[in-house]
Amino acid sequence: MRKSIATVSVSGTLTEKLAAIAAAGFDGVEIFENDLLACPLPPEQIRDRAADLGLTIDLYQPFRDFESVPADLLARNLRRAEHKFRLMERLGADLLLVCSNVSPTVVGGDELAAGQLRLLAERAAERGIRIAYEALAWGRHVNEYLHAWRIARLADHPNLGLCLDSFHILSRGSDPIGIEAIPGEKIFFLQLADAPLLAMDVLQWSRHYRCFPGQGNFDVSGLVSHVLNAGYAGPLSLEVFNDHFRQADTRRTARDGMRSLIALEDTLKGAGRAHPVVPSGFAFAELADGDPAEGRRISEVLAGLGFLRTGTHPTKPVELWQQGGARLLLNATGGDPALVAIGLDSADPGGAVKHAESLLSPVLPRERAPEEARLDAVAAPDGTEIFFCDGSWLSDFEPDRQVPGEITGIDHVALTQPWHYFDEGELFYRSVLGLRPQGSLELPDPYGLLRSKAMASPGGAVRMVLNIAQVGPGDIPRQHVALACDDLMAVARRLRAEHPGLLLPIPANYYDDLEARHEVDPELRHLGVLYDKDERGGEFLHLYTVTVGRVFFEIVQRIGGYEGYGAANAPIRLAVQHSGGN
Amino acid sequence: MRKSIATVSVSGTLTEKLAAIAAAGFDGVEIFENDLLACPLPPEQIRDRAADLGLTIDLYQPFRDFESVPADLLARNLRRAEHKFRLMERLGADLLLVCSNVSPTVVGGDELAAGQLRLLAERAAERGIRIAYEALAWGRHVNEYLHAWRIARLADHPNLGLCLDSFHILSRGSDPIGIEAIPGEKIFFLQLADAPLLAMDVLQWSRHYRCFPGQGNFDVSGLVSHVLNAGYAGPLSLEVFNDHFRQADTRRTARDGMRSLIALEDTLKGAGRAHPVVPSGFAFAELADGDPAEGRRISEVLAGLGFLRTGTHPTKPVELWQQGGARLLLNATGGDPALVAIGLDSADPGGAVKHAESLLSPVLPRERAPEEARLDAVAAPDGTEIFFCDGSWLSDFEPDRQVPGEITGIDHVALTQPWHYFDEGELFYRSVLGLRPQGSLELPDPYGLLRSKAMASPGGAVRMVLNIAQVGPGDIPRQHVALACDDLMAVARRLRAEHPGLLLPIPANYYDDLEARHEVDPELRHLGVLYDKDERGGEFLHLYTVTVGRVFFEIVQRIGGYEGYGAANAPIRLAVQHSGGN
Repeated sequence: MRKSIATVSVSGTLTEKLAAIAAAGFDGVEIFENDLLACPLPPEQIRDRAADLGLTIDLYQPFRDFESVPADLLARNLRRAEHKFRLMERLGADLLLVCSNVSPTVVGGDELAAGQLRLLAERAAERGIRIAYEALAWGRHVNEYLHAWRIARLADHPNLGLCLDSFHILSRGSDPIGIEAIPGEKIFFLQLADAPLLAMDVLQWSRHYRCFPGQGNFDVSGLVSHVLNAGYAGPLSLEVFNDHFRQADTRRTARDGMRSLIALEDTLKGAGRAHPVVPSGFAFAELADGDPAEGRRISEVLAGLGFLRTGTHPTKPVELWQQGGARLLLNATGGDPALVAIGLDSADPGGAVKHAESLLSPVLPRERAPEEARLDAVAAPDGTEIFFCDGSWLSDFEPDRQVPGEITGIDHVALTQPWHYFDEGELFYRSVLGLRPQGSLELPDPYGLLRSKAMASPGGAVRMVLNIAQVGPGDIPRQHVALACDDLMAVARRLRAEHPGLLLPIPANYYDDLEARHEVDPELRHLGVLYDKDERGGEFLHLYTVTVGRVFFEIVQRIGGYEGYGAANAPIRLAVQHSGGN
Repeated sequence: MRKSIATVSVSGTLTEKLAAIAAAGFDGVEIFENDLLACPLPPEQIRDRAADLGLTIDLYQPFRDFESVPADLLARNLRRAEHKFRLMERLGADLLLVCSNVSPTVVGGDELAAGQLRLLAERAAERGIRIAYEALAWGRHVNEYLHAWRIARLADHPNLGLCLDSFHILSRGSDPIGIEAIPGEKIFFLQLADAPLLAMDVLQWSRHYRCFPGQGNFDVSGLVSHVLNAGYAGPLSLEVFNDHFRQADTRRTARDGMRSLIALEDTLKGAGRAHPVVPSGFAFAELADGDPAEGRRISEVLAGLGFLRTGTHPTKPVELWQQGGARLLLNATGGDPALVAIGLDSADPGGAVKHAESLLSPVLPRERAPEEARLDAVAAPDGTEIFFCDGSWLSDFEPDRQVPGEITGIDHVALTQPWHYFDEGELFYRSVLGLRPQGSLELPDPYGLLRSKAMASPGGAVRMVLNIAQVGPGDIPRQHVALACDDLMAVARRLRAEHPGLLLPIPANYYDDLEARHEVDPELRHLGVLYDKDERGGEFLHLYTVTVGRVFFEIVQRIGGYEGYGAANAPIRLAVQHSGGN
């Protein structure tokens, strides 16, 4: 299907927007009026610019507060429309979006609205222009798409049809199945936006919190399938108002929008396209280790946690450290200690990379010697390298043994997402890896709020937590690898005895409160182990190491089907980390 | 009255918070539980720390979901309470805030709630602790303060009283006059917060958008006067949850909170304290002019606008430029061209500075020679120096003439407020200068949203626009001085003919739209003049100069009682400025 996007969805000036939209591979654009008004180019040159970029101008928008008005105002509104028709001729646009009237002075009655819209359509027809009438969710009288359709049917003019917008329909909780009652040729245009579920005024929700399909909570693809069933053959067009997108990089946002439409098409086409090759587990996590001259190294922490170095890469400065099913690569290529890559077990690494590439993820070039294992990798929007592994990679390191130990594997990794690009990260991990969102949280931090979203593969073999980088004095955006074990108290006892300096200290006040809320083992306090209990009785024991560079480790034990991440305790950790507990 | 603040209101760790709160001059604190839990100090040391800083611990909070529960849960809740009572003994706190239950499992009935709260009060009494019961605006059964009072009256225990919170009362639209029906000695505590009027879920509104009294739209001082009429004699205590405050400087926020309580007391005491000496006009605006070696200077723009240099300061590198009633000082002390100070005509400069100082504004030291005029000045939170002038300052410059011209005076100045400190700026200009908020707006900018608030003295002789600095690639936080005139078209004609390079170019597309909306003089387009019309028929003509450093000028003409600032045209200006139109 043709793909389009409204210029208001991305940041920048109109010419910057057009270039970014074309570069992302869109077929067309909706020209948003304010972008045009502020542009120094005359409409003819904007038309030429779009054509040179291979973009069609699919819609001009919005034309507001036209219908259901008294006669004197109608005359003024028609005059206003004639100006816009002339502009559209210069621009080479033949479809005008008319939003349902929101003015408090509007006069009621479907007959009046239909008559005035018919008049508008007649004037438009003289110039070969068509009118797409849209029910705004906060329209004064008309705010449901089926009401807009009743009026358009009454008006009964070939140049008058509907614009459907997923936000306006789904934000009101309207059932989109009614769309199938509308003849496809009367649906002149389809605008798509998703949104998180928020309890707020719908106008503010729409103006600030829309996002691309797949980034929010609406069933946008379900709505699109009803529109296709109705016989709609026009473009899928993104129209998003989002405070973060407004400040984000123009090209990056445009590419993210294109990714959302490709993922939406994947969902619609079902088996027709490659679906995500869902990873079956963590193959490894790769950490850049710091300069040995500068303070503590990750390798010291790993050794303390019971990991052993079991192999070295034949040609790169990379070591394999193992314990139980947990495999960590330490990369000594320099830079601050940080989590740089994640390896995922995949039944079809080649297919996984191909799928990621179809979703506009950059495939990473891998320089390798002929005898080395093939590694397929793409870059996530947060910069993390994602490797798809079939197991052969281990042969590079020729590990000579298994390392039994307390740690059984990697439970989850927590990645810091760049500010303004949280939604992009979620869409990537959702569409490329097939992870499912588990919930999102805002956690108090001494210098702000930490936004956090958890995602997991079906079954939970791969879990990731995406955190938004905080801002604050002396702040470090931290990442961590959480390691699973079967007996956290035993791990804690050993670490407390042998490596007490590796553990993040937990304040006694935390345990006073914990003991007020739950009947817990007093040894938790002694060992500095944190505790959480979910509503179904599942329990979570966990502890943290100190931070090295940007990285720390968590050790966790899940009991009785606990599915969370100890979020209730995260503010304690954040405060201790900020207080210099490291 | 004693002044207190909840530790949650400011950023940082608990010990940082206590130090900042004491430094701002508060008498006491409410200890917010999460701050204590994350603190490495035991309660005894927190008590000592507060005492050393001269702070009393006025309240411990919150204790949640206690009342209206089944018997088994009551036993667990009482056990939980006993833990908190022991903690409070160690902390030296004798007042516990109990919020009305929000759990979906709560059991209804005032008798049950009263009986359980009485039991809690009895247990508390054994340890000399009192319970302040608060109706949360989103409490499951109890969410109105008079309902909480009915239950407390039923419970009838001397250790059980109420906590009143202005947010919970005013956010629901409850009439605070009912407070006068509550005996003052049963109001154990008073928490104050203001908030902007927002159409959103009350819980989200409360958790993210509260602000200090005088920064929002609630009549907080009206509520306080009812509480005082009821006979309340406890502290005024701020309790604010605000996303910006969470990220702002701890000491600065604490000082801002103290300013809000002092201003609130001023309002309550009426004539008992100095009221703002409201300025009667702009005496001058002072601009730092750039280095003559680097590009265009402000003096060139002023000369083009018809200003004349009429004087030079005897001892400082400062020139006076005049036209009509507009006086601008150009300061050649170096740095980028910027608006650095505003002089305000004041009937009592000494009193104005004393009032500003009572509101914690730093008074600026002025080095001057004995024969020079006295200048009283304070620093605004945004760094602008505010001078209070009685007219004698002009004698320093010995201006030898009046400069008749097209410009009649300064209409308004637009100042950029630092990110996270928008509310602080509003409170300063409101409480120190007596300006009144006129409205706030969010305007689209090519790289974000510009938040803008207009304020004016009664009568409009002094008008200011506060803008939040945007972020974005290559962004400059701009300031401007708007100059008034009686015939903007004449000014525009002269400038277009004589100095076309000084004018910000306005796109032709703007005029196509303007002519679609209004029947306007076609000369507007030719001259690049912008136009706005308000709902009452008032009209506004304006134009902009190019930017020098951080500063540009606007020239405006108000017709027919127009009170706005041409906000509808600001996005056009912002886009042209971003596009390099300068």
